[in-house]
Amino acid sequence: GHIQYDMTNLIKWLLLAVLTGLTVGFISSLFARALKFVTTYRIEHFWVFFLLPAAGLVIVFLYQKLGQDDGGTNQVLSTIRSQDDVPFHSAPLIFISTILTHFAGGSAGREGAAIQLGGSIGNQLGSWFRLDEEDRHVMVMCGMSAAFSAVFGTPMAAAVFSMEVVSVGIMYYAALVPCVISSIIASEFAANFGIHPESFHVVDIPDLTVETGLKMVLVAVACAAISIIFCMTLQGISKLYTKYFKNPYIRIAAASAIIIAITLLLRTTDYMGAGNNLIELAIEEGQTRPLDFFWKILLTALTMRAGFRGGEIVPSFCIGATFGCLMGHLIGLSPSICAAAGMAALFCGVTNCPITSILIAFELFGFRGVSYYLIAVSISYAVSGYYGLYKDQTIVYSKYKAKYINRHTRF
Amino acid sequence: GHIQYDMTNLIKWLLLAVLTGLTVGFISSLFARALKFVTTYRIEHFWVFFLLPAAGLVIVFLYQKLGQDDGGTNQVLSTIRSQDDVPFHSAPLIFISTILTHFAGGSAGREGAAIQLGGSIGNQLGSWFRLDEEDRHVMVMCGMSAAFSAVFGTPMAAAVFSMEVVSVGIMYYAALVPCVISSIIASEFAANFGIHPESFHVVDIPDLTVETGLKMVLVAVACAAISIIFCMTLQGISKLYTKYFKNPYIRIAAASAIIIAITLLLRTTDYMGAGNNLIELAIEEGQTRPLDFFWKILLTALTMRAGFRGGEIVPSFCIGATFGCLMGHLIGLSPSICAAAGMAALFCGVTNCPITSILIAFELFGFRGVSYYLIAVSISYAVSGYYGLYKDQTIVYSKYKAKYINRHTRF
Repeated sequence: GHIQYDMTNLIKWLLLAVLTGLTVGFISSLFARALKFVTTYRIEHFWVFFLLPAAGLVIVFLYQKLGQDDGGTNQVLSTIRSQDDVPFHSAPLIFISTILTHFAGGSAGREGAAIQLGGSIGNQLGSWFRLDEEDRHVMVMCGMSAAFSAVFGTPMAAAVFSMEVVSVGIMYYAALVPCVISSIIASEFAANFGIHPESFHVVDIPDLTVETGLKMVLVAVACAAISIIFCMTLQGISKLYTKYFKNPYIRIAAASAIIIAITLLLRTTDYMGAGNNLIELAIEEGQTRPLDFFWKILLTALTMRAGFRGGEIVPSFCIGATFGCLMGHLIGLSPSICAAAGMAALFCGVTNCPITSILIAFELFGFRGVSYYLIAVSISYAVSGYYGLYKDQTIVYSKYKAKYINRHTRF
Repeated sequence: GHIQYDMTNLIKWLLLAVLTGLTVGFISSLFARALKFVTTYRIEHFWVFFLLPAAGLVIVFLYQKLGQDDGGTNQVLSTIRSQDDVPFHSAPLIFISTILTHFAGGSAGREGAAIQLGGSIGNQLGSWFRLDEEDRHVMVMCGMSAAFSAVFGTPMAAAVFSMEVVSVGIMYYAALVPCVISSIIASEFAANFGIHPESFHVVDIPDLTVETGLKMVLVAVACAAISIIFCMTLQGISKLYTKYFKNPYIRIAAASAIIIAITLLLRTTDYMGAGNNLIELAIEEGQTRPLDFFWKILLTALTMRAGFRGGEIVPSFCIGATFGCLMGHLIGLSPSICAAAGMAALFCGVTNCPITSILIAFELFGFRGVSYYLIAVSISYAVSGYYGLYKDQTIVYSKYKAKYINRHTRF
């Protein structure tokens, strides 16, 4: 009886995971392709940047008409824990809005979009198959993992991320098989679709000694501070917006004007989109400008909190890599390894997901700098406090003591 | 105030972790060296095998005189969750008993010993520094990680294992920095001491296709079944021992006689000790005998439950590798990758620690077969039920549904 139940359950979830992996893999691959296309177009045609206010107005209009109940990434996370539902129309909404944001040169990521896209499709598949509440939560995680995996090409980190991010300190292992299978399928699908997984070549990895180890501790502490500053900037800009621009149309138009003004003053297009160019330069060449991280923080906060869509994770990668690289130059440790470790540390600081951060480091940078990534991620976790990108994330156990606290992150 | 507390806390734990890493790293390196020495001696001098009953009697005598309150690995795990204490004398006891067990050719591992050695030293350091209850639990985990890391040379898996194993589904992230730092230091220490980390070269990794993926699912399901059988055999032998041999001296003498008889009948010394030779043959040459896994299960259960010491984890590696290799031959999938995946799957089945299992696979086999390891580990987790090696491990969330259950593993 028990064994039969086990096997029926396994087969059920294998089939559901394959289906989710294929469906979400297909749609996410389309999404990644479209993103790549508009990004290339935008790089070649500077003038589209002046469409930013128009793109913003369209996004606000769409959400006002169709997505009043759409709570973004937070809603997906809270769905997994509670009775809430991810509305199905949030999938096309986030797809179009993120494409528009990247097309017009807003500073935004794509993982928030991937999570909402995947979560919403997973939930919808679950309800078509009349799964119960708990199984639908697993389907939401399964869809999140598949989308994350297709868009980033990191199946392992993607599988773990959805289990780890909802409640820090708790692993939703009931979703392990579905998340792993759908991640693998989605990433294979995306690869066959021509979406190639990113990877960065870390050029200079010094041996671990007391000196390099201590320097890495410093880099990690500084990155944790920057991750707090990033979260506070996002929150501060939110408050300023709601104070001075109550109307969302005026807010996004004014924000676009500010973003355009800053960009014209800086005379660079480097901070548009996700910032992959800056990440590459920092990790593979060990080069960065001293204020790159600052402008990326500011422009991402201005873009995302005005109502544009996409996510804050890839920008946080960019902030971490550029800041880490800068720290490397300042303290005299390989800027390349500092950029890579800084990227993982900043990701950990804003998401509070140490295991995912370490796995992402392996998948993007390879295995060789493992000790540095471990140091950077663990220390950033410990000193980044209870800040985070997602207000519906809970931190179930204290970061400082082995005890139960169950509090929401500040954001 | 908050930032200052953060930094003081960080510096406190960095110092404690360095101290634990060095102390435990030193003692564990001695332990690993001694193990290596007695194993080499035993391989070259078959006659020491006949000392097995004598070694057993000494071990029982030592535990009767000094360790009446010693609960083994289980006690270390329950210490972390409760008010319990690991007695300091359990460190020398487990050190000597494990060396004796390996010297005389019992079928046993060394990770249980490492966990008790490290946990007990960590706890002792914590009480010398007058740390409070919660911080002492962190010190126990920190010591466990350091010892595991020094003995196996897998710092990453070691750091995560102590946080993951106590309560499945809950990550004790408060111990993240201490565990990571002490693991790295202990593994560097051990490497400088001439203890070289193990790694196995997987010779044939086929591309992931629908066919190879499905075959790997079969291997994983079979490995999960074997992990249940292994746990049931351990429990069954325990029951038989308590039924027929009430006196622990008679029990261990009789058990030794049975083990010697079986070994002489089989005319092979392959099942003595941890079984590294069989693991290497299975993974690097794709070779195994059909009943290797069976004899390893039986002889490990006979040895460990009679009162010998060491641990069941490395034997479970050996069972997984030989059985996986066999499955590979049976279903026509590379025996080498099946052996590697089987090893990870069996470890996951008996410890219920999927993240540690995946990390161990990377550290021992490298990154290339990642999809296979992910499939094997996740499926083995899902279908291995609530069995496990440690009766004080709790499984906090259901393996089948996203819900809270908080039950102990069967063992």
